[in-house]
Amino acid sequence: MSKAERTKQFIIEKAAPVFNSKGYAGTSMNDLIQATGLTKGSIYGNFENKDEVALAAFDYNFDLVVSYIRNKMDARASSIDKLLVYPETYRNFLKLNFLQSGCPINNTSAESDDTHPLLKEKAANALQFWRDRLENRIKTGIENNEIKPDTNTNEFISVLISLIQGSIIQVKVTGKIAPLNATMDFLERMILDLKT
Amino acid sequence: MSKAERTKQFIIEKAAPVFNSKGYAGTSMNDLIQATGLTKGSIYGNFENKDEVALAAFDYNFDLVVSYIRNKMDARASSIDKLLVYPETYRNFLKLNFLQSGCPINNTSAESDDTHPLLKEKAANALQFWRDRLENRIKTGIENNEIKPDTNTNEFISVLISLIQGSIIQVKVTGKIAPLNATMDFLERMILDLKT
Repeated sequence: MSKAERTKQFIIEKAAPVFNSKGYAGTSMNDLIQATGLTKGSIYGNFENKDEVALAAFDYNFDLVVSYIRNKMDARASSIDKLLVYPETYRNFLKLNFLQSGCPINNTSAESDDTHPLLKEKAANALQFWRDRLENRIKTGIENNEIKPDTNTNEFISVLISLIQGSIIQVKVTGKIAPLNATMDFLERMILDLKT
Repeated sequence: MSKAERTKQFIIEKAAPVFNSKGYAGTSMNDLIQATGLTKGSIYGNFENKDEVALAAFDYNFDLVVSYIRNKMDARASSIDKLLVYPETYRNFLKLNFLQSGCPINNTSAESDDTHPLLKEKAANALQFWRDRLENRIKTGIENNEIKPDTNTNEFISVLISLIQGSIIQVKVTGKIAPLNATMDFLERMILDLKT
């Protein structure tokens, strides 16, 4: 990595948690200056504008979640056990640095509607990536006779994502963990119900 | 209503959809000037600052949702039919003016964390109000022998709210309606399963 690339990477790493916690519209250039300890000129020397930092920060935040979940899944053998990584991970999302401000997809949804079309596109691609991964996982589970062949895959995926995103919102809004635990209990049973 | 009260109400009504669509941090004073057609001085003559308009706008947006759902429920006799108002309403949220930008609770969740403590408090109270209403509704249904007495009320409430909030996010991020419909199909069956 060149020095310029290292600086760019440094800015992304420091900016990423700020964007995820304050929101993409709620993060100012001053927040980025404070988070990085760099000057405005130095940040603009590496990125066109705040939005370009936001896009790189989204990728960085999303990759952290994807890598974490993939590593956990890779350490497990059965399709059901792999799927159980979701309720286990999100039940503890407040204890995970890169998730404690919530899911990057979720955190861009409120404001990305019409204000940040490129950010919206990134969030949409991330959600599609998640759906595709889940679809493959369930397909493999059915092929291996681990998951019931009559599983309504599309409904299951939509419901799993809704349960995760919706329960994170409840924690973020109230600070209470009980609705998350109740929802993750439910999701766990839903996953175990897939078993042949 | 005095002229001052009418102006204040006018500003709230015009500002409310803007806050719900652009996000509370993403809405600028210029957006409010454009939405109301009033001058900055006139807006500041009625509100301390942008945040005060945001708080009033949140109440206004939330009341619209609550009134709509209550009216629908009041027109129905059984507890199960009343609960079915939720999937019916949210399935069509894009067609409802006051909901097409999503749920006000949801729309404040991403940014209200640390930036707007008063807004966060409002969203938390709104969510608790929703939970209390659901709890009463299920209690009444159990007393009337319409709903199974062994219903796990707390889990049901957390899951219902997660399904609604999480499916709205999916629509907002992708623009696709299929995950919402699949999730609402699931919620409908979940409500029908409560039946004695």
